[in-house]
Amino acid sequence: MKKNAKISNAVIKRLPRYRRYLYELRKKGVEKISSKEFSNLIGYTASQIRQDLNNFGGFGQQGYGYSVEGLYDEISAILGLDREYRMVILGAGNLGQAIIKYTKVHKTGFKVCAAFEVKPSLIGKEIDGLKIYDYEDIVEYVENENIDIGIICVDEKNAQEVADKLSFAGVKGIWNFAPTDIEVPPHVAIENVHLSDSLHALAYHMNDIHKRTAHTGESEKQ
Amino acid sequence: MKKNAKISNAVIKRLPRYRRYLYELRKKGVEKISSKEFSNLIGYTASQIRQDLNNFGGFGQQGYGYSVEGLYDEISAILGLDREYRMVILGAGNLGQAIIKYTKVHKTGFKVCAAFEVKPSLIGKEIDGLKIYDYEDIVEYVENENIDIGIICVDEKNAQEVADKLSFAGVKGIWNFAPTDIEVPPHVAIENVHLSDSLHALAYHMNDIHKRTAHTGESEKQ
Repeated sequence: MKKNAKISNAVIKRLPRYRRYLYELRKKGVEKISSKEFSNLIGYTASQIRQDLNNFGGFGQQGYGYSVEGLYDEISAILGLDREYRMVILGAGNLGQAIIKYTKVHKTGFKVCAAFEVKPSLIGKEIDGLKIYDYEDIVEYVENENIDIGIICVDEKNAQEVADKLSFAGVKGIWNFAPTDIEVPPHVAIENVHLSDSLHALAYHMNDIHKRTAHTGESEKQ
Repeated sequence: MKKNAKISNAVIKRLPRYRRYLYELRKKGVEKISSKEFSNLIGYTASQIRQDLNNFGGFGQQGYGYSVEGLYDEISAILGLDREYRMVILGAGNLGQAIIKYTKVHKTGFKVCAAFEVKPSLIGKEIDGLKIYDYEDIVEYVENENIDIGIICVDEKNAQEVADKLSFAGVKGIWNFAPTDIEVPPHVAIENVHLSDSLHALAYHMNDIHKRTAHTGESEKQ
């Protein structure tokens, strides 16, 4: 693996998906897979797959294909999933509670340690067994508890200030659910989840299909 | 607007983001914006912005720029956000409850009407005022209540079967939160939200920054 090569964002976005499919293959007991077979499964072209994996030095062998387990482990290591991450949630309203519930479902490797709030009525309470602390104490908590990731679930007008505080406190990554784009210093990684953008894209595709089938009369087929 | 032009998925993914920024500009009372100013704000190049918006016939005027309100309304209409969508949630476990909470926060134009479950202990109960029905009744409900969108919050091994049932019942779109890729007939639109993929990408970026700064000794700066 080329340690310092800059990998494009598009490739990185595809890696978790490769890993997800490899996980399923491994569960089914599949030991090796060619880029062609992988292509049929995942929907990217075989050449795209080879090109993506070449970014990391490539793990395939001519005429043999990829080792499912080997590739799964390599991609896991590349993504940094061979260790645990400690997280805190900022904002314990509906959105924060939603993410707490979500992380209970898919928690492998990512542990939510605490939630933080400004609202006195919420501080000291628990959500699904998770303690809610005073937002005032966030910097101390992040330092003492070796927190890696801050999850922003506050509303959009407070998101930037919370991100600044988290960056100052020393988190290495921010997972932002507030429906706004926030700025972070270069030593902090950021990943935005704009669920409403996804819903709007869905609305577009629904209307696009409707327009197309209305033109050809295909909507009758339903 | 070219009614039947096929717009690339990449452009469609950017439209909700354009709309979000235009919404903020409008709130601030900004009336017009050049592609250059828009570029500084949103981070895409001015040429990218012009190219994206040209897909829809373009709304800018040479030497004047774009009308913020006009462009906001046009993009809203293109995305199909000038009407209400009726949705149901499939699966009322932690993930389903998370999405119910989320839609309460950002519900504009998208209304969750009911949740459906197979577990007898959940059927008949309410979550945040939302009634949980028996999954057996999903087809009838979708037909009678004119449901547009089904939100899949069941686990990955049941996701495809639920999607098939929803498609059969006549939904026009599926918003899938199960951590698997599902297949739908051509008359149904699908949008996958793989939150764990997003978290894995964040882990990658954190480790990438760490490796880079460790090499140059920049990590000391923090």
